Amino acid sequence: MKHRFFSRSLYKGLTLLGIFLISLTSQAQKKASITRVDPTNWWVGMKNQDLQLLVYGPNAGTYNYSITYPGVALVKAHKVENPNYAFLDLTIDAATKPGTFTITGQNGNQKLTRKYELKARDQEPKGQGVTSADFIYLVLPDRFANGDPKNDKFKDMADPNADRKNPFLRHGGDIQGIQNHLNYFEELGVTALWLNPVIENNQPLTDEGGAMRSAYHGYAFTDHYQVDKRFGGNEAYTKLVKAAHAKGMKVVQDAVYNHVGINHWFIKDMPSKDWVHQFPTYTNTSHKFQAIIDPHGSKADWAVMMNGWFVPHMPDLNQNNPFVANYLIQHALWTVENFGVDAWRIDTYMYNDDEFMNRCNQALMDQYPNIHIFGESWVNNVLAQSRFTRNNINFPFKSNQPGTLDFVLWTAMNDALNQNFGWDEGVSKVHQVLAQDIAYQDPMKLVTFLDNHDMNRYFSVIGEDLNKYKMGLTWMLTTRGIPSLYYGTEILMKNFKDPSDAEVRRDFPGGFAGDKENKFTATGRNERENDAFNFVKKLANYRKNTPALHSGKLMQFVPQEGTYVYFRYNNDNTVIVATNSTDKEVDLKTERFAERMTGFSSARNVLTDQNVSSLSIIKIPAKTALMLELQK
Amino acid sequence: MKHRFFSRSLYKGLTLLGIFLISLTSQAQKKASITRVDPTNWWVGMKNQDLQLLVYGPNAGTYNYSITYPGVALVKAHKVENPNYAFLDLTIDAATKPGTFTITGQNGNQKLTRKYELKARDQEPKGQGVTSADFIYLVLPDRFANGDPKNDKFKDMADPNADRKNPFLRHGGDIQGIQNHLNYFEELGVTALWLNPVIENNQPLTDEGGAMRSAYHGYAFTDHYQVDKRFGGNEAYTKLVKAAHAKGMKVVQDAVYNHVGINHWFIKDMPSKDWVHQFPTYTNTSHKFQAIIDPHGSKADWAVMMNGWFVPHMPDLNQNNPFVANYLIQHALWTVENFGVDAWRIDTYMYNDDEFMNRCNQALMDQYPNIHIFGESWVNNVLAQSRFTRNNINFPFKSNQPGTLDFVLWTAMNDALNQNFGWDEGVSKVHQVLAQDIAYQDPMKLVTFLDNHDMNRYFSVIGEDLNKYKMGLTWMLTTRGIPSLYYGTEILMKNFKDPSDAEVRRDFPGGFAGDKENKFTATGRNERENDAFNFVKKLANYRKNTPALHSGKLMQFVPQEGTYVYFRYNNDNTVIVATNSTDKEVDLKTERFAERMTGFSSARNVLTDQNVSSLSIIKIPAKTALMLELQK
Repeated sequence: MKHRFFSRSLYKGLTLLGIFLISLTSQAQKKASITRVDPTNWWVGMKNQDLQLLVYGPNAGTYNYSITYPGVALVKAHKVENPNYAFLDLTIDAATKPGTFTITGQNGNQKLTRKYELKARDQEPKGQGVTSADFIYLVLPDRFANGDPKNDKFKDMADPNADRKNPFLRHGGDIQGIQNHLNYFEELGVTALWLNPVIENNQPLTDEGGAMRSAYHGYAFTDHYQVDKRFGGNEAYTKLVKAAHAKGMKVVQDAVYNHVGINHWFIKDMPSKDWVHQFPTYTNTSHKFQAIIDPHGSKADWAVMMNGWFVPHMPDLNQNNPFVANYLIQHALWTVENFGVDAWRIDTYMYNDDEFMNRCNQALMDQYPNIHIFGESWVNNVLAQSRFTRNNINFPFKSNQPGTLDFVLWTAMNDALNQNFGWDEGVSKVHQVLAQDIAYQDPMKLVTFLDNHDMNRYFSVIGEDLNKYKMGLTWMLTTRGIPSLYYGTEILMKNFKDPSDAEVRRDFPGGFAGDKENKFTATGRNERENDAFNFVKKLANYRKNTPALHSGKLMQFVPQEGTYVYFRYNNDNTVIVATNSTDKEVDLKTERFAERMTGFSSARNVLTDQNVSSLSIIKIPAKTALMLELQK
Repeated sequence: MKHRFFSRSLYKGLTLLGIFLISLTSQAQKKASITRVDPTNWWVGMKNQDLQLLVYGPNAGTYNYSITYPGVALVKAHKVENPNYAFLDLTIDAATKPGTFTITGQNGNQKLTRKYELKARDQEPKGQGVTSADFIYLVLPDRFANGDPKNDKFKDMADPNADRKNPFLRHGGDIQGIQNHLNYFEELGVTALWLNPVIENNQPLTDEGGAMRSAYHGYAFTDHYQVDKRFGGNEAYTKLVKAAHAKGMKVVQDAVYNHVGINHWFIKDMPSKDWVHQFPTYTNTSHKFQAIIDPHGSKADWAVMMNGWFVPHMPDLNQNNPFVANYLIQHALWTVENFGVDAWRIDTYMYNDDEFMNRCNQALMDQYPNIHIFGESWVNNVLAQSRFTRNNINFPFKSNQPGTLDFVLWTAMNDALNQNFGWDEGVSKVHQVLAQDIAYQDPMKLVTFLDNHDMNRYFSVIGEDLNKYKMGLTWMLTTRGIPSLYYGTEILMKNFKDPSDAEVRRDFPGGFAGDKENKFTATGRNERENDAFNFVKKLANYRKNTPALHSGKLMQFVPQEGTYVYFRYNNDNTVIVATNSTDKEVDLKTERFAERMTGFSSARNVLTDQNVSSLSIIKIPAKTALMLELQK
């Protein structure tokens, strides 16, 4: 989720408190019923035996509930302000058998019932995690490929229009479209797919800065338990995960805890006033993360940063409300268990309540010990970034998040490509950022990137320079961390105007019926695009089979005169990445790298497969990151 | 000490190892004697009862030593490679009486003797420390005032020339010149004087980039136990400290452990080859501090950074040699005890051996519990800066240094004055740097500055803009930390060319006989200079009497639209500093600062003494840091 700056006038006087009060008075007359229970099902044999059911329906909160099922105990039933909700605390014994029980509500003579299923856990892989052995590919489902034209439009959705000609509307891309290209990902060397959120975004069009926009991005959930039917629904997602797993690929879920869409079913009839954060007048988040880490900061700034809304149509959930917290945590567990996803990318991580995040992360890690979790914390310095992952700093609050997206290295890599070399400029920046890795407990768990759906496209940012393109990709694919690639970077997709969501989220050519070009195939790509594609493919596949680039140590040397040299190494293998960021060929003397080069006499150029017979001086062409595997 | 980049050709083939070997062979024939013992004296009643005497003279190391004095035991006598040195480990019992003992050396029939004095400790204040209640004034002794024209030139010095017309030669400023202006400092509100080093720099002129330069800066010691006689010698320094103390002012010693002048007496006849760091060929330090903190760093880069020399004429001491370490630590203790100095500024802090620095700091803190120590570590980020003071980060090495010069805030304050306001620019920089104070155990102990002897002068850097000048000074004198002012900033001294030592170290007008102008007096200053002087004076004297600005807490708010607001407060007093960094007057709504303003109804403008009767909106002129004391 990107920082966006909306005029407050957009808010148009809407207050959720107002909606809430109207809803309370209007529903008192309705006939009681249970219209939904969340989570929509659960499993026996989960490590945590607690389960809190949200029971919803007209006046459902005015009933007294009971459940009779061997191993299941209803420990407590909670009422909240809104009579349409009951929250039922269950425990499910380890020995409980799968099956269906009945939730029974009694109010005088009135009775409500609802079936609820406890499934057996399947043996499919799930929560496998991603590690520094992986290479993640980020896809925006609406914009990648349309695998099922039947699900493009639904008249019953708040945003029924799909129109590929309008950059702000839905284009019809879907999960089947992604699944159709698993071979493509495999060829490229990708080992994990990260999809921008696939959960239902049944949002109306919103007026954002003059243009009517749809929630094709997926960050405005309206029903946590439904994958958007325009993407193919729960069924398509289940199928994709299975198909990916069958190819040895993992799937990363894009989780959003901070906010939901204003059209979320529970926002339209909130359980209580404090279900979301509200201020006397509409208050946008300041996006000023400093307010979180500042020992001199004010409570006022903290509250605006944390509890202010991203945009008027995305209410900010109050995770201090224990029902909200449980709802989100259980949904996270349900998602991994139900779909079998492997890792967890968390949107707008730092805007979430600290204690809630730790509790939520811990719940996932307790159930799925191998899962990886990495959030989005868009900050500008290492000290701040480390605050939102496991770190070596005595912050008053200690995060348990295993990883984080590395925004600081992203900035440094871009500067390294776009600035001339200097004491603190150019490749010096990359060296300087990595030199601060002491801040993290495990920098290898950070997820690196050159761009994503919220920023100008990499190839455009570096001036469409193919040499720079290869340098940056080489760094990302060989330095520490878990690399991720934004869809289309491999075929040189670019954006022409300054950041606009639409510009950096163009359709992948060839993914849609009627496309004149098909960049999924070598024949559909032009020479430059094939050069780029083959470069990523070669490097990613080399990486895939080179453990020194996964778990090997990193040793970097102080940049000199525009060169920047580092090694990845383990007992079996030593790889040198020797960067010449200048415009002239360089003869690099290697004497100063003796610590890592002693004992090696020759090398193989990983990309060209050429042999390098002498190592005392390495010739590096201009604007090149040479990658050599050393040989004894 | 500044980063300087000298051509290696300057080194001209000199190797200390060569000098060392020649010296060993040529001195074997000389008649034995003891020509010096360091420390030159010691005291009874010191907390640490150990003392290691360096005994020096032709073949002094070939003798067996004994000492007979009640309470004093010679525990061990060390021989080193050079026969001209003996190192004697003594212990001095707590009950030992002051007096003089004889060091006796015996070698067959040959006998050497040398008197050594153990003084009684006097009751003068010493090691009082500086705190955030202080305001430090940094003086370059050669360039401030010539109080004693008789000590300007000495024919027996390696640099006998003094010439005020030559910016690179000595100008004749001295300690008496500083002492003559104690009333001036007092009027300005200064509470502590920091002198660039006053220790003997009996260095020849050196060719640095074409110009012959003298060591007028003081950073190339040639005899630790002598204050340079061109500054007035030990006597003048003793007098100055006493006179300053009599006025309630403290004195900060500028310590240099990392290197000495090539003309240092012990460099000309080194105790052992490993007395200084040596490489096969001359090796300059890289100045790349990243090599110290980098968990991915190489030993090679570390060694060049730490052990490389600053310049060819300043050998880099090897503090891993225990005799070197003891020599430096004892000299530090001797300096406080002998002169009564109060605090300790450490040159090129991060270039010193970590373990040595902690041991040295601890020795001073054990003996003088109130002493303050703050080093120079010229880095570009908070994480790195915190590495060199007591911090909250689990670095593999934990520094015990209580403070550090705040280079990161210096950069931020300059950017804040010179950049337009932006998300991460202008005053946002100051806010962002202070927001990282969690890195430090006690950010209040950092020493803040706007410039110093190694950088372009503040007034020039900000484009000689008096409004910016006042804003920056207001920040420095009101935010957290211990402010320090470089001499002449208060009279708008500037440098006209890009950095040159000479340009930023011009003579203080009025300090030297024959000066046409005397800026020490109001009548000698022009209107602008008086405006500046009176501004500093007013602010510093207000600060002096306002504990909220010393030990009060800091609360800062996220900058908005070019304004930046913070508070200093304690139970008695609340001061708001409201900065408008834009070019237009601003009406600042104060509602968001309620946490600190509730209960206050009016305020006094600290600088104008005007009353502000309403606080809901504060009018701030363009480019102004308004400072108001709130009133109930």
